[in-house]
Amino acid sequence: MIHDDSPAAGLLYEKVAGKITKLIRDGVLRPGDRIPSVRRASRQHRVSVTTAVQAYLALENRGLIEARPKSGFYVRFRRSEDIAEPRLSKPAVRAAAVGMVDLVTRFFESAARPGIVPLGAALPGEELLPTVKLNRLLASISRTSAGRSASYDIPPGCAPLRREIARRSLDFGSPLGVDEIVTTCGATEALVLCLRAVAQPGDIIAVESPTYYGFLKTIEGLGLKAVEISTHPRDGMDLDALAAALRRHKIAAVLAMPSFNNPLGSLMPDENRRRLVELLAKKEIPLIEDDVYGDLHFEPVRPRVARAFDRHGLVMLCGSFSKTLAPGYRVGWCAPGRFLERVKTLKFTNTIATATLPQLAIAEFLKNGGYDHHLRTLRRTYAEQVQRVSEAVAESFPPGIALSRPRGGFVLWIELPRAVDTLALHEQALRENISIAPGPLFSAKQQFRNCIRLSCGHPWSSRHERAISVLGYLVKKAAAR
Amino acid sequence: MIHDDSPAAGLLYEKVAGKITKLIRDGVLRPGDRIPSVRRASRQHRVSVTTAVQAYLALENRGLIEARPKSGFYVRFRRSEDIAEPRLSKPAVRAAAVGMVDLVTRFFESAARPGIVPLGAALPGEELLPTVKLNRLLASISRTSAGRSASYDIPPGCAPLRREIARRSLDFGSPLGVDEIVTTCGATEALVLCLRAVAQPGDIIAVESPTYYGFLKTIEGLGLKAVEISTHPRDGMDLDALAAALRRHKIAAVLAMPSFNNPLGSLMPDENRRRLVELLAKKEIPLIEDDVYGDLHFEPVRPRVARAFDRHGLVMLCGSFSKTLAPGYRVGWCAPGRFLERVKTLKFTNTIATATLPQLAIAEFLKNGGYDHHLRTLRRTYAEQVQRVSEAVAESFPPGIALSRPRGGFVLWIELPRAVDTLALHEQALRENISIAPGPLFSAKQQFRNCIRLSCGHPWSSRHERAISVLGYLVKKAAAR
Repeated sequence: MIHDDSPAAGLLYEKVAGKITKLIRDGVLRPGDRIPSVRRASRQHRVSVTTAVQAYLALENRGLIEARPKSGFYVRFRRSEDIAEPRLSKPAVRAAAVGMVDLVTRFFESAARPGIVPLGAALPGEELLPTVKLNRLLASISRTSAGRSASYDIPPGCAPLRREIARRSLDFGSPLGVDEIVTTCGATEALVLCLRAVAQPGDIIAVESPTYYGFLKTIEGLGLKAVEISTHPRDGMDLDALAAALRRHKIAAVLAMPSFNNPLGSLMPDENRRRLVELLAKKEIPLIEDDVYGDLHFEPVRPRVARAFDRHGLVMLCGSFSKTLAPGYRVGWCAPGRFLERVKTLKFTNTIATATLPQLAIAEFLKNGGYDHHLRTLRRTYAEQVQRVSEAVAESFPPGIALSRPRGGFVLWIELPRAVDTLALHEQALRENISIAPGPLFSAKQQFRNCIRLSCGHPWSSRHERAISVLGYLVKKAAAR
Repeated sequence: MIHDDSPAAGLLYEKVAGKITKLIRDGVLRPGDRIPSVRRASRQHRVSVTTAVQAYLALENRGLIEARPKSGFYVRFRRSEDIAEPRLSKPAVRAAAVGMVDLVTRFFESAARPGIVPLGAALPGEELLPTVKLNRLLASISRTSAGRSASYDIPPGCAPLRREIARRSLDFGSPLGVDEIVTTCGATEALVLCLRAVAQPGDIIAVESPTYYGFLKTIEGLGLKAVEISTHPRDGMDLDALAAALRRHKIAAVLAMPSFNNPLGSLMPDENRRRLVELLAKKEIPLIEDDVYGDLHFEPVRPRVARAFDRHGLVMLCGSFSKTLAPGYRVGWCAPGRFLERVKTLKFTNTIATATLPQLAIAEFLKNGGYDHHLRTLRRTYAEQVQRVSEAVAESFPPGIALSRPRGGFVLWIELPRAVDTLALHEQALRENISIAPGPLFSAKQQFRNCIRLSCGHPWSSRHERAISVLGYLVKKAAAR
């Protein structure tokens, strides 16, 4: 019998919940099925009754099961489960100069409008971030480390922060050395430096399809071209499609998010990660692996990074604390493998250094601030919020849509009926004070015209519920046209 | 009679000191001359005796005059005045890909070594910066503005900071609108964004000769080429040479520091600034004006920026607070004229945003922190330190050298005898725990092999005095070889 008051107890009920979730996902337990009593579950899973209760409450919070008075727990009828998943994307095969015009800027500005229901930008809700605690650390460091801010923290950057990242990387399946890491102004700068280290203007970068619009803007800004690779909503980039693209194009680098692609929430299986890394190694093509959502897994165990399969220093791993701690601190990092020296030099020429004190505050939070505890809560909350939004969409949207099943992160990808133009929908929603991210943002060629991404980063509320009803109405109207 | 206890009194004695300095500089008052008594000076300049005393003490601090007991004040015999100024530089006329190898990185790393006498990197001495006060503001803002750090401060960036910069720009001779400014991660990012906004890889950028090595590294990093323009040690870039270069090359932009070029300390006269701007306007070529030293003028009045003469939106003005407040805060800005929208977009793709809280802290310091008072002290101190180092060099270095006469900033440029290889000197000095900046750093073609730059950013001390004696010894030895 495992003692539940051991330090690992926090994870234990998550393990039980994870197993039951899998049973539901795999269809072993189906909507309406009664699930074992807590007492029985405690015996089955060899945990205490308390732990079993915790697991059931978590599943209830996530909308997977429901309690019926004096009867027990049942698998919920979940309308969102009945909705199809999006299919494998079919991007154009030709590389393209990216033409994002001012779509992103307009979108980002409108998403920040006060009073808006923020389903657009992929920002964590303020309430979910430990801002007060982190700022208190920053305040205290500001008072005690005066000298530190009076000089440049030149590349590779803040040593205490690099130490903490190295320590945490033990969970990545790819332990990083302190000296393999360079700190940056957010993951965005990390990506810029990695791209500049391995590609010249005019070069082609392979990206997922759909992909994060920030990648496309950055590729555009650097004068690079993008080729979009067909991507599976559950498993990530399609490797056969990538192999075909590699035969067709001279590709300078692959830029991807194997863990929880934004906007799909897909999770590339380990076997695919290995194949991806080996495929690229054969042609000496670097993989720029954006792992900003890696800590936000819904399954109990953190996914390994693709870098774990790299034996040639070709994977350039990038991360940040913008999705988990503080977007406004602008602290990110990369471990650029064999391109380390080049990235350090480019960092120097791009911004000289990252702001010193915010880095020290984050290092201190990672060391003594309870980051793991915070992440556990955050993951649970995001999983719940994604479930809530999925259910609300299932309630309010017309038939014929498809809905992603994110495995982590906090965004949802929705395919609407073909007739819906989401650029127009975006404008209509804005007039109702709702921000959404229209699909064409996520493609160099502005495909996905009938898709939207919804952010589930903010705590669920009746405002969100109403907003999604309104969206459903607008979609129905547009589809009927 | 002017009342000296008016708010302007602080400046009043500086005005008197400035007038006397000019008389000395122009040779009206010569070494050994007795200068008027304070009583007489108070009548001549229509200020109180106290103000006259203040002025004389300031001049004494700067090493320009000396008190002889019971006799009065005399113009000092200044050995540094006897040393020639460097001549107009004669750079190669052909544009060149920049090849800085790892010179800069090696130099920068060694300059940060603990225990070193820091005559290398152009960093302000920690003791001279209001770090404690600024960090206290940051601490207080961290506690009260929690929400601000939980989102991206998207371009154009921190509005309170842009307001303060706009207010201060009234002294630039070119008032900036709040909406014309974009905040950045230091002036370095500002320059990167401006260069990227107006130049494509392979394009040619005209720079001063010598020029700041950071410019060269950035130009190299972006795949641009540099053409070096002959530069006068007092008046800055030679405009006839620039005109000739414009006829010879297709130049995409000019990148210059009209106010206190690093490393020369030159100050371009207003008339030349006007000519420069008009010359470029004819060919629609943008001028990227780096004004990071603009606030550090030794004369009483701040120089006007070249942008003041721009009527076509072609001057992209860049500044920062790294030389006056806090290098480690990484806060800079630019006013990119007609390229505003492009720079905002590039800022978004380069780092999304600048860290929020450091920007707010600097905005608060500018508003209520006594920035002007701080700058007055800093300018006086730098002027004194430059004078001290100049005198020490005059004492210790062999004959036949030339010495710049900086008009602001805090670096000194020294031409050594032809036989001296300053890359070797740099290594020798490092072994004696002294960092200097070797001349080849300041040229795309690594000219200036017999020149060095000394930083006077740190408070003068006996350590510095000894270090300069040692340098003098090393130079003599190298020259004799």
